Amino acid sequence: MSAPGTPVKRVPLDQLPEATLSGPTRMGSLVMPPGMIMTASTSMDAMKDMAAVDPANVKATASPGARGDRPLAPTTVKGVKEFRLTIGLTTWNILPTRQVDAYAVNGQVPGPRLRFEQGDRIRVIVKNTLPEGTSIHWHGLILGNRMDGVGDVTQKPIAPGASLTYDFTAVQAGTFYYHSHTQSDRQQGLGLYGALIIDPTTNPANIRRLKALTRPGDAATALARVSDQPRTDKEYVLQLQEWLWRDGYTFPAMMMEGALPNYFTINGKAYPSTDVIRLKVGQTVKLRFIGSNNNFVHPMHVHGGPFEVVARDGETLKASARFLADTVNVGPGQRYDVIWTARTPGTWLLHCHIPHHTVNDNVEEQGGGGLMMKIIVE
Amino acid sequence: MSAPGTPVKRVPLDQLPEATLSGPTRMGSLVMPPGMIMTASTSMDAMKDMAAVDPANVKATASPGARGDRPLAPTTVKGVKEFRLTIGLTTWNILPTRQVDAYAVNGQVPGPRLRFEQGDRIRVIVKNTLPEGTSIHWHGLILGNRMDGVGDVTQKPIAPGASLTYDFTAVQAGTFYYHSHTQSDRQQGLGLYGALIIDPTTNPANIRRLKALTRPGDAATALARVSDQPRTDKEYVLQLQEWLWRDGYTFPAMMMEGALPNYFTINGKAYPSTDVIRLKVGQTVKLRFIGSNNNFVHPMHVHGGPFEVVARDGETLKASARFLADTVNVGPGQRYDVIWTARTPGTWLLHCHIPHHTVNDNVEEQGGGGLMMKIIVE
Amino acid sequence: MSAPGTPVKRVPLDQLPEATLSGPTRMGSLVMPPGMIMTASTSMDAMKDMAAVDPANVKATASPGARGDRPLAPTTVKGVKEFRLTIGLTTWNILPTRQVDAYAVNGQVPGPRLRFEQGDRIRVIVKNTLPEGTSIHWHGLILGNRMDGVGDVTQKPIAPGASLTYDFTAVQAGTFYYHSHTQSDRQQGLGLYGALIIDPTTNPANIRRLKALTRPGDAATALARVSDQPRTDKEYVLQLQEWLWRDGYTFPAMMMEGALPNYFTINGKAYPSTDVIRLKVGQTVKLRFIGSNNNFVHPMHVHGGPFEVVARDGETLKASARFLADTVNVGPGQRYDVIWTARTPGTWLLHCHIPHHTVNDNVEEQGGGGLMMKIIVE
Repeated sequence: MSAPGTPVKRVPLDQLPEATLSGPTRMGSLVMPPGMIMTASTSMDAMKDMAAVDPANVKATASPGARGDRPLAPTTVKGVKEFRLTIGLTTWNILPTRQVDAYAVNGQVPGPRLRFEQGDRIRVIVKNTLPEGTSIHWHGLILGNRMDGVGDVTQKPIAPGASLTYDFTAVQAGTFYYHSHTQSDRQQGLGLYGALIIDPTTNPANIRRLKALTRPGDAATALARVSDQPRTDKEYVLQLQEWLWRDGYTFPAMMMEGALPNYFTINGKAYPSTDVIRLKVGQTVKLRFIGSNNNFVHPMHVHGGPFEVVARDGETLKASARFLADTVNVGPGQRYDVIWTARTPGTWLLHCHIPHHTVNDNVEEQGGGGLMMKIIVE
Repeated sequence: MSAPGTPVKRVPLDQLPEATLSGPTRMGSLVMPPGMIMTASTSMDAMKDMAAVDPANVKATASPGARGDRPLAPTTVKGVKEFRLTIGLTTWNILPTRQVDAYAVNGQVPGPRLRFEQGDRIRVIVKNTLPEGTSIHWHGLILGNRMDGVGDVTQKPIAPGASLTYDFTAVQAGTFYYHSHTQSDRQQGLGLYGALIIDPTTNPANIRRLKALTRPGDAATALARVSDQPRTDKEYVLQLQEWLWRDGYTFPAMMMEGALPNYFTINGKAYPSTDVIRLKVGQTVKLRFIGSNNNFVHPMHVHGGPFEVVARDGETLKASARFLADTVNVGPGQRYDVIWTARTPGTWLLHCHIPHHTVNDNVEEQGGGGLMMKIIVE
Repeated sequence: MSAPGTPVKRVPLDQLPEATLSGPTRMGSLVMPPGMIMTASTSMDAMKDMAAVDPANVKATASPGARGDRPLAPTTVKGVKEFRLTIGLTTWNILPTRQVDAYAVNGQVPGPRLRFEQGDRIRVIVKNTLPEGTSIHWHGLILGNRMDGVGDVTQKPIAPGASLTYDFTAVQAGTFYYHSHTQSDRQQGLGLYGALIIDPTTNPANIRRLKALTRPGDAATALARVSDQPRTDKEYVLQLQEWLWRDGYTFPAMMMEGALPNYFTINGKAYPSTDVIRLKVGQTVKLRFIGSNNNFVHPMHVHGGPFEVVARDGETLKASARFLADTVNVGPGQRYDVIWTARTPGTWLLHCHIPHHTVNDNVEEQGGGGLMMKIIVE
């Protein structure tokens, strides 16, 4: 120790002590991450919350090439669009050589994309095959309180092996998502979330339903028109996530000692395994950023010129409030719709601007890693 | 160690080393948090900054049911509204079973709410009963420089046992706050802050005073009208804070190893001990978020539909710049006024969307913890 | 361990174990930071990424009084403005008593400020004297893809000892910056960045060039007029950075255990060594915040009244979208131009509102440290 500002003699390399490796430890039947602070006041429930996914419970194996966020077509039953989701544990490749143990929906990370129209009546039948209770929250949606999916608040968690049906009418349009709202520091952090994309409608039955259901003048439920936002040639949904994997064990990433993440994914894949967006010069793409990440505000940046921010949290911005930017801070729970124009041919990166989030366990591959993807313009 | 991408054999549970508990340590008369990095170049002043509150110095005990942010009525002395604040150490229950050692104002965490009108003349007499110097900064206010409260810059810290009087005229209206500006990483982080709510005025003396004091055309000091923002049925002020408590010792939470927080409070209480907001369907509430937190940008989210963002940092947004959102990133020092409409009956959560911030030392109680509260709509 | 909520007996000070100091360790020829988690799956490449700058490689020494961000005058060669940048290692004083090992440009941290006009043709000749490959990215600029500077994506890294010429025409105007886009978690984190300020033009050749090069209706490349933003009396550019220095070794700061920063700089200097802005009452200053920081979203706050936010990421905000604030969240990669008015005489602080970022290794000097500076109004 020393007074501030006094010189400290630098110990030369060969006189420093050698570094030692340490790894996960065990506490009863739990595997704990290295670096976690555990003291007399740390409870066993806290340990369980932070422990590795028990590999013995992971009986499904996703193919290394499997992708998440696959569109799931609904079945229409008496005018209701019905989706079936099964929650369970699976191995999941975030890179060809890096396999994590994940909380998945229909075997995917992120879970399947649910897409429907404003005014649609929706039913989602959720089956829980986890060894613990869970529930699904429809983030940002206006719906009946018993459908809000908050474990121990608006419902009992869905017990292992049980199912629950969620029913609601989509009174809004825009970019939303679903995620676990039971132990979400662990369950959402390990992959339990997926996109909800709600399109404008021209269906007269939907329009009548909206008029009957919503309060006049509520801008959040006003009938969305396709013309509210500029049309784009393509669109791409980006769901962000942080992971902690060490020595074959997967832990939920959290902002605490021993739990800080070392892998990062867009739609369940780390760069260079992320998707590629392909455009022609002059074309536009709507990027729908979803803050499904649990910990950081990610400043998402696109090379090759600015985008226009046209919606926040599913709500289209008034023209007077829209703005150009090249980096947008996507916090947990937030959504940003931005429109980017392909101005110049070439390979343009889209990435988080925290460089530690564009490496894979501190290593760059093909110019980066983690929260990064390519836009190729021809 | 291994090359990136090469497989690592997962050591099975029963061959892992057993975890060991560690707790606070001592360094002379200081209690240091577990996990703190202390090296040859760490100064004794740094140690003091990070050490636990010395329990021997905490002589006051707040009742476990005590609430912070209580409105403090001023005394009017010759046209000046006068408030008296006493700063000191106290125990404080953030949960019925979790008692921290806090830097409090008038025995409360947060300190009492000061509310007055634009144009009012204000006097605050601050008495320091801490064993160290302190000062109070009026965050966001336009005032005389000697009243700005920055220790060692605009004033000498108020010595232990001494008092200081701050005088200013409120030339703005909106949501502001006060906090320690002396060792604020420690003092504010341990509870030394409170809300300043400044209402529009219709008092002719105040209006005359404003005209005389402020520059024409300065939007920040323009006379606020009650009609500038939509009227709401209720309002609620939310002051955020992060805590680090281990084994009976309270440390200031900071973004460094060993200092990351494990408890989180709204108005000095962790969920489920936070307040409940009660509304009827169709009613509105103005939520005034105050970034009194010291470390994280907290993405504050409300269930049950979006709110309208109507003010930032005390300044009402032009109608053209207002927007709907369901999650707003409240950074340290920021304020957001948002208006939420009770659209549907039931229990709706309001919470930070970093799930690690809605647990109590990594444990969920009644569906969450920490930065979470209920809005009950009937 | 204990069940949540059960009382934990506080161990009195004299029965706590004594704290022990630990410092950097060695792993082969690398010096590793204390607290870094190294396990079987940590790769040697990851170690290199996180290791200290090897002092043996640092052969240049900047004078303790040297300042970064010095304007670099271009040479005009056949109508092209040409700048020469040399990248290399140097010692750098962030405080009179604290010297770090930095990745510098022309011996400065930040690198020299490049300033030119919209429509100018620019050439930058970059020479790499580092012991490793590097590249320079022109953050936010619309340019040819081969000029984008992304190592291993748009170009091979510039080899040690080699040079590369970047050519582009500035089709935008506003606040931009350049930084390493090769191992940027390490290279940018250790100082490899600098400001790009592009002014509106009245040069007819530039205006013709813009018309020929850019797409009609692209707001990002519209001809900027001096009148687009209110004129100010002064301007000041702020480039933010986080550092990790322990026991004479400098490590790249990252959001991981053992790598969290303990020093913070504006334009390469920690308060109280930061610049002072001097204004007269009634004068205005344009503050150009550049998110050259690698890790945190910094809520930058100014005392003495709000500023107006007039541009984001180099793009001037429409009048309808501008707003007043006293704190703005500057995320990595973002830029904010704000205009602050000197309303009242005195010394007003400008600082990050995370108080841990306004100390120097946890110590306050002259009322603060790190990301803080003074505005003195007479």
